[in-house]
Amino acid sequence: MYYLGIDLGGTKIAAGLVDEKGQMVSKDTIPAGKERQYSEIVKDMAGLALRVMDSYGVGTDDIRCLGIGSPGTVNNEKGVLIYANNFPHFNDVPLRQEMQKHIDLQVELGNDANCAALAESICGAARDAEHSVTITLGTGIGGGVVIGGRVYSGFNGSASELGHMVIMHEGDECTCGRRGCWEAHASATALIRQTVHAAKKNPSSVINTITGGDLRKITAKTSFDAAREGDETGRKIVNKYIEYLSEGIINIINIFAPEVVVIGGGISREGENLLSPLRKLVQKGVYFKSEPATQIKAAQMGNDAGIIGAAMLGRNTAG
Amino acid sequence: MYYLGIDLGGTKIAAGLVDEKGQMVSKDTIPAGKERQYSEIVKDMAGLALRVMDSYGVGTDDIRCLGIGSPGTVNNEKGVLIYANNFPHFNDVPLRQEMQKHIDLQVELGNDANCAALAESICGAARDAEHSVTITLGTGIGGGVVIGGRVYSGFNGSASELGHMVIMHEGDECTCGRRGCWEAHASATALIRQTVHAAKKNPSSVINTITGGDLRKITAKTSFDAAREGDETGRKIVNKYIEYLSEGIINIINIFAPEVVVIGGGISREGENLLSPLRKLVQKGVYFKSEPATQIKAAQMGNDAGIIGAAMLGRNTAG
Repeated sequence: MYYLGIDLGGTKIAAGLVDEKGQMVSKDTIPAGKERQYSEIVKDMAGLALRVMDSYGVGTDDIRCLGIGSPGTVNNEKGVLIYANNFPHFNDVPLRQEMQKHIDLQVELGNDANCAALAESICGAARDAEHSVTITLGTGIGGGVVIGGRVYSGFNGSASELGHMVIMHEGDECTCGRRGCWEAHASATALIRQTVHAAKKNPSSVINTITGGDLRKITAKTSFDAAREGDETGRKIVNKYIEYLSEGIINIINIFAPEVVVIGGGISREGENLLSPLRKLVQKGVYFKSEPATQIKAAQMGNDAGIIGAAMLGRNTAG
Repeated sequence: MYYLGIDLGGTKIAAGLVDEKGQMVSKDTIPAGKERQYSEIVKDMAGLALRVMDSYGVGTDDIRCLGIGSPGTVNNEKGVLIYANNFPHFNDVPLRQEMQKHIDLQVELGNDANCAALAESICGAARDAEHSVTITLGTGIGGGVVIGGRVYSGFNGSASELGHMVIMHEGDECTCGRRGCWEAHASATALIRQTVHAAKKNPSSVINTITGGDLRKITAKTSFDAAREGDETGRKIVNKYIEYLSEGIINIINIFAPEVVVIGGGISREGENLLSPLRKLVQKGVYFKSEPATQIKAAQMGNDAGIIGAAMLGRNTAG
């Protein structure tokens, strides 16, 4: 048996056919066309799914279920997409029902951060864990929580907004309206802002050499690169950033005590440059200091995590 | 069938016989004698449990299981009490095995905050909820999480330390070694400290009239009393305290999206004086602003929550 996963992105929609082990065997994409009515988009999603099946020579009888991962908030119990970032016509859409007009399969819904977490849990960095938390450091901080092998999304589908956990009362402004959210201090966006600020204050920093003085060229990697070249400003930015990151990770461990916390997103490619100092801060800060302790690992699933996680949404529930 | 619950407290140990509906039908207590070896304490606990059964005329055949609630950290899977505040000889104690030397029953372990949460979930303020979070505002902030009707305690028993979630990076010192934990700003202890500080700075405040100028008489109720008398200092303390409290509650809702957050501990007796302004801040701050929203309620179970919750620990697992 196979599973179908659809990853609803702002630019493109990707569908993949995934086997029992979580390996993707076939994949295709179409442009999102996000401004269109939802009925048109869903029709195209169904067409894409059927094409992916066709290209691998399987039919709906070979598929256990179809999962859809979306940015924003879904209520899987009701089969409703409540809100999807970037899709103006995707508000309170009966996505399951709409999809089943075109394709006769069980349909499961999840948000994209939860799908990434499920993929890591089933065949990635947390594959042996019963409980795991996956965070993605990007524009914001995405959070996905897997409890007992299943995505936890709360009673209304809105759980695991880990980026919107305040770690600094009256701290930096967040897009959500609060101040001091974790993502306002520890997302890639926040790190870039912190780097720009420090580069302005320290004209002699290597950062300004790397970027040729053009602050717009600063990325989430710049301060790490500067630190690697021995730059004191770069080192300070990185250390402070890892401190902010650790506050949220320690909170998550004190709250969930998962076997594994998985860290994804571009910054996680720094690998041990990021994880080694982070683990030291976490070990010092966590409430429970006995063994066994939560492990912190880099994400392993890469760009296909969204499709694979979406496909696997129904693995424990599909009949 | 009945359930037996034992609440291990620093001063006394209480045992109760609880029916299927969570009603306590018989109860007794003994002094804790917490300095003694664990084997002696456990023997007394078993004797107390047998006495409670005897007094109601039931035997072990009438009991589905025995639950023990303890301060600190337990690993129920292994049957081990890892650490219990105030009990110097309760470190890594095989509590299930030790108890079963004296009494032939299934034994389940839980920490006291989790037991309180389970009691509220089964027959208290969260009785219709599938997912609920109970916090207890006292010396610290105790947290208990019930997911799908069962206590969630993580892979090593150390989860739901909600009081040790940092809400203020570099904030006030916490007993756990970090700075800015929620309980360092929003426990009863924190409120008393905030009140003492404000009373010193504002000699003309009603607080100093209420306490006759003796700062040692300040309790968690004093600032609320002063505010009720129209005192500006009292009002400011209460407002700021509720703001700190809301930071943690909003985080919890963004993380767990539970049907209900239950607030217990002495301060919760302020009722709507506390809950009404708190709900306004929470409504404004939560990430998910659609319906259905998480409800915030005062705890209903009172002093027996610990015994009843302990008794109910095995309700979903007992054979």
